[in-house]
Amino acid sequence: MNSDALANLYRDYIACLNRRDLDDLGTYVHDDVRHNGQRLGVEGYRLMLQKDFTDIPDLRFNIELLVCQPPLVASRLRFDCTPKANFLGLAVDGVKVSFSENVFYEFQDAKIITVWSVIDKTAIEAQLRQEGAAGHP
Amino acid sequence: MNSDALANLYRDYIACLNRRDLDDLGTYVHDDVRHNGQRLGVEGYRLMLQKDFTDIPDLRFNIELLVCQPPLVASRLRFDCTPKANFLGLAVDGVKVSFSENVFYEFQDAKIITVWSVIDKTAIEAQLRQEGAAGHP
Repeated sequence: MNSDALANLYRDYIACLNRRDLDDLGTYVHDDVRHNGQRLGVEGYRLMLQKDFTDIPDLRFNIELLVCQPPLVASRLRFDCTPKANFLGLAVDGVKVSFSENVFYEFQDAKIITVWSVIDKTAIEAQLRQEGAAGHP
Repeated sequence: MNSDALANLYRDYIACLNRRDLDDLGTYVHDDVRHNGQRLGVEGYRLMLQKDFTDIPDLRFNIELLVCQPPLVASRLRFDCTPKANFLGLAVDGVKVSFSENVFYEFQDAKIITVWSVIDKTAIEAQLRQEGAAGHP
């Protein structure tokens, strides 16, 4: 698969997430997928996403940057969303936050086999401090 | 510049940082460089790195993953180092920590013009909790 085909496949995966079509996850995610060093398998991966959608009802994935060099994809995802309660150990509690995730994927057999993700927690903390300051002048 | 040439240029940039040859930074970093939305310029970028090397005397950049698609580079950097005091708002205080940075670069005129970096703060927090638990059984 060349870079363009891999980019299209990745965009289809993100569209699948934004449709919340988790029944179709196995089209894009390998049975033996690992996420940040942990073997989740496609079932564990589906549970992780189901929890994300429950915890963040307005969760939507937006691709901001995409770099493809088979078998690797790097993506900067942008989120503008409202976690209901705790998120990454922070009491977000229904505040609207904007943050990025810089994430690498390795593909095997045209499916995601490994994910290395880092979410910009520092940005969320800065927004919660501002929100706290605005709420308590 | 093709992907291989860009990858070699990026590796040379990382080697420059690991030599701490900040006088040579202008070879790799554009005069108008922006870092996480802020225009630093090459002087501001040099000051940022000087502060990093002061705060983290054993700082060393290790490329773990590299994805090149001109004009973009995505890199997962691995650090095993010992921040002297505060780092990302955490009281690391001389504990050895391991963490990753997922970072994107845009190149222009064969120099870095834009950087979008996210550091895995959650991983450092988990190590400090373990360290705290080990220190106070």
